[in-house]
Amino acid sequence: MSEDNIIYVGKKDTMDYVMAVVTQFRSGSAEVVIKARGKAISRAVDVAEIVRHRFVREAVVKDVRIGTEVLGEEGEGTKVSSIEIYLAR
Amino acid sequence: MSEDNIIYVGKKDTMDYVMAVVTQFRSGSAEVVIKARGKAISRAVDVAEIVRHRFVREAVVKDVRIGTEVLGEEGEGTKVSSIEIYLAR
Repeated sequence: MSEDNIIYVGKKDTMDYVMAVVTQFRSGSAEVVIKARGKAISRAVDVAEIVRHRFVREAVVKDVRIGTEVLGEEGEGTKVSSIEIYLAR
Repeated sequence: MSEDNIIYVGKKDTMDYVMAVVTQFRSGSAEVVIKARGKAISRAVDVAEIVRHRFVREAVVKDVRIGTEVLGEEGEGTKVSSIEIYLAR
């Protein structure tokens, strides 16, 4: 899968990411992965839910994976939770 | 599964919920469900990750479900995203 199909959710408005995901589907992608870390995880879930309920109604949540990523230098990194939401139609 | 196996994550300290989940496992539960809504979703993921990496290392993420719940009166409810994380050992 091309990198284009991955939308990283951060601190911008939820609808900015919703539109990015919708654009990916409209450009022909069969699957879009929504990724986020830390406090942005809640927003990533909002993005997935808004996309599939309001914009791409045939989209389904194929998989949700959670994990832990280490930020910063090796050995002194801060741990942060992460999520990957796989939306497919 | 009994209601005891469901831990609702809200605005308290993350470690309070971690301890609640660990206590459930230590009391003999084979599965614990961590639930949260809205901004608490990020904290729920933190809780699951901390439990399985630091306290109950044999626990695995069996399933993660996301959804939308309607709060308040019918027809005028606010929609909020939700998550359910199924931890099992």
